[in-house]
Amino acid sequence: MSPALRLAVLTGCALAAAPALAAGSSVVGENLLWLALILMAARLFSPFAQRLGFPAVLGELLLGVVLGNLGLAGFHTFGSIARDPIIAFIAELGVIVLLLQIGLETRLGDLVRVGPRAFLVGSVGIAAPFALGAFVVGPALLPGLSSHAYLFLGATLAATSVGITGRVFRDLGRLGTTEAQIVLGAAVIDDVLGLVILAVVSSLVQVGSVSAGQVGTIIAEAVLFLGGSIAAGRFLAARLAGRLASLDSGPSMLFALVLGSGLLLAWAAHAIGLAPIIGAFAAGLLFEPIFLRDFATPRVVQEIEPLLPASGRSTLVADIRRVLERQASHQHEHMIEPIGYFFVPVFFVLTGMQVDLRSLADPAIVAIAFGVTLAAVAGKLAAGLAAGRGNSPWIVGWGMVPRGEVGLIFATVGKQLGVVDEALFSVVVIMVIVTTLVTPPILTRLLARRP
Amino acid sequence: MSPALRLAVLTGCALAAAPALAAGSSVVGENLLWLALILMAARLFSPFAQRLGFPAVLGELLLGVVLGNLGLAGFHTFGSIARDPIIAFIAELGVIVLLLQIGLETRLGDLVRVGPRAFLVGSVGIAAPFALGAFVVGPALLPGLSSHAYLFLGATLAATSVGITGRVFRDLGRLGTTEAQIVLGAAVIDDVLGLVILAVVSSLVQVGSVSAGQVGTIIAEAVLFLGGSIAAGRFLAARLAGRLASLDSGPSMLFALVLGSGLLLAWAAHAIGLAPIIGAFAAGLLFEPIFLRDFATPRVVQEIEPLLPASGRSTLVADIRRVLERQASHQHEHMIEPIGYFFVPVFFVLTGMQVDLRSLADPAIVAIAFGVTLAAVAGKLAAGLAAGRGNSPWIVGWGMVPRGEVGLIFATVGKQLGVVDEALFSVVVIMVIVTTLVTPPILTRLLARRP
Repeated sequence: MSPALRLAVLTGCALAAAPALAAGSSVVGENLLWLALILMAARLFSPFAQRLGFPAVLGELLLGVVLGNLGLAGFHTFGSIARDPIIAFIAELGVIVLLLQIGLETRLGDLVRVGPRAFLVGSVGIAAPFALGAFVVGPALLPGLSSHAYLFLGATLAATSVGITGRVFRDLGRLGTTEAQIVLGAAVIDDVLGLVILAVVSSLVQVGSVSAGQVGTIIAEAVLFLGGSIAAGRFLAARLAGRLASLDSGPSMLFALVLGSGLLLAWAAHAIGLAPIIGAFAAGLLFEPIFLRDFATPRVVQEIEPLLPASGRSTLVADIRRVLERQASHQHEHMIEPIGYFFVPVFFVLTGMQVDLRSLADPAIVAIAFGVTLAAVAGKLAAGLAAGRGNSPWIVGWGMVPRGEVGLIFATVGKQLGVVDEALFSVVVIMVIVTTLVTPPILTRLLARRP
Repeated sequence: MSPALRLAVLTGCALAAAPALAAGSSVVGENLLWLALILMAARLFSPFAQRLGFPAVLGELLLGVVLGNLGLAGFHTFGSIARDPIIAFIAELGVIVLLLQIGLETRLGDLVRVGPRAFLVGSVGIAAPFALGAFVVGPALLPGLSSHAYLFLGATLAATSVGITGRVFRDLGRLGTTEAQIVLGAAVIDDVLGLVILAVVSSLVQVGSVSAGQVGTIIAEAVLFLGGSIAAGRFLAARLAGRLASLDSGPSMLFALVLGSGLLLAWAAHAIGLAPIIGAFAAGLLFEPIFLRDFATPRVVQEIEPLLPASGRSTLVADIRRVLERQASHQHEHMIEPIGYFFVPVFFVLTGMQVDLRSLADPAIVAIAFGVTLAAVAGKLAAGLAAGRGNSPWIVGWGMVPRGEVGLIFATVGKQLGVVDEALFSVVVIMVIVTTLVTPPILTRLLARRP
């Protein structure tokens, strides 16, 4: 095809009145290649990383760091990917699916049992780093800034991002431990408290004061949303599952119900100002294996039955059926799995790509960032001390160290309000990078030592 | 949270330096809600539609038509979704996954066996509607247009979109029939020939002439791509599958290999000017169950074994293993299934949303469109006559009737070259709507009559 015609066709597609129908457009092409490479690289990396004793998620993060910084070596091919809104959305779906999976593998009862403990850990994990950042490290390492700037630094240190930790716990099959449940519960509480801190600090900067009513409204909204959606959702899920199973006993309906609920609550959480992943996690808590027994009718039993000896066939069939049903009651989790394989690595590779190694260029800033990062880690480790007897304070503490996207969002809000300057922003970025990258290997080592 | 703060947070997210990390942005929210609704509506619709004797895909298309035209009744909420590039990309992934699934369920050998027949059907299916449109219906119904306009009308009538037909065959479990294989083969050939026609017509309009070398290059590129990627892909797939199975016998690696190949070849097809779905279909042809035997090691056997009576246990285990292995050798297809449940309905709902019922407002245009649509159907039914003894000419002919996105892309190129005016474009849009919507129920009825 002549270049001119090729251009005409591509432009034609891109400008077509019907964007979906004309989706052979140029933007589609690059993204397909990208998704293919991330999907395959992530699955090839993970067994290698694990054989070397690294958590798989670190492989994906580092792959992202390398790709994202090839621009420094003169390759600018990948820069556009990191800024592509479609890839960003797929990445967001990835972390939503991950937290939905984590929610599905968590029993609400276990979470309620550790509730008070998680509340304590979450509160200390917000208060300690906030105080350290706003009143100690900020004024000491960055003298001369406004008190508002220190408040914002404290807010970014208080943030918790549960994606990294949840992934490590899940990869190692440790979501069932009390430590994991405390960290998950504390992360939910931190998301609500983080919202409160951001609101208070922003209000202080913009209006100069903060009203108790405002703070009360935020907390009430969040508690009502979480409590309401879990209560109503569990009531509905138990009944809907039975109805849907009678309509079509295949697992596709159940899959749609589970994944659809995840997306719906992620949207609802986002709509009231919480992180979408908190909604997805709550959606995962709605479904207990017991609701889903009606879907557990594996057709394989019918094929196996005639193979069995006639004497004692019925007991044997019942036994085999039980094995297969136990499998089948987790079928919805198995069906979400491929969705996770596809989406989740995109999130971690893209998170790695956001790491701009140029922020490490100024030694003075790196030195300050080092001090701030120490405070960030110390503050969350202090929360680990509240984990209670029998639980490893180190695992709980390190579990809350990664700041990920949440810290960056807080810093960005501060930047837009004119409170956080370029230097402080760079410091926060380095703190986010370090807390996000060092946690997976440390947590893996800590968990390996536990029986 | 105060509205002002909420805005600050949302803006902060949307403008954050790190788009993926800050993916709690406002655009994310709406799309999550959308995907949840499409996912759940599609799965709820399909059993109802099937109970009423409608193909499931028609339910999804009509759902789209209703949502897309609520603007006419004063509800404009859904208009922005139809134009959202992220949803458009997810829809494109949907039709790519569908054609990958269809490719996986098609044996290359069967396709080669019907090759000459498919070539004949494809050629008639391009030539007959093109001639009807360019030389008969165009000049008769739309007198006074330039000869270039008639050529473009012919090109849009020649287009074939295999997504709709493939979905109907697949939903009814008829992909194994010779008719289905002829239609699939003919669709691949039509995509190449359609590209040739578009190039020739565009060249005539722009340069006034067309060179044999140009046409030869397009054909050579397409044939080399399809032949080369299938030959090289099958060689690699057979070897890679063995290697990967020895690395990690779980199905996740295989899943990544299959889905990754689908995305990769979709990108490659797009890069040389073919439709991405043709690449995805070719990728599906790479994997035969025999390559994948090494992955077939279901752990369930180990759980069942101790339950069996000791006497004759080994033969029994072997029998049961065989049943489970037969299942497992299709495991990659099963793992792609949830990806399909998630993405495929988005394509069909969005296709329905592109239908602008306002184009039906002008009776004169509707009358002309009616004649053009008759020619569009007649031309493809003529191709059905070439299906050969023992194959239903009606099934093959109707299988090629939907024009879908391909016809619209052709018309859009013509519009951009200044050849296709508003009236002619509306006529083409109506023809595309009708051929796309009437085919699923007709094909379902025709297939139901066959044993």
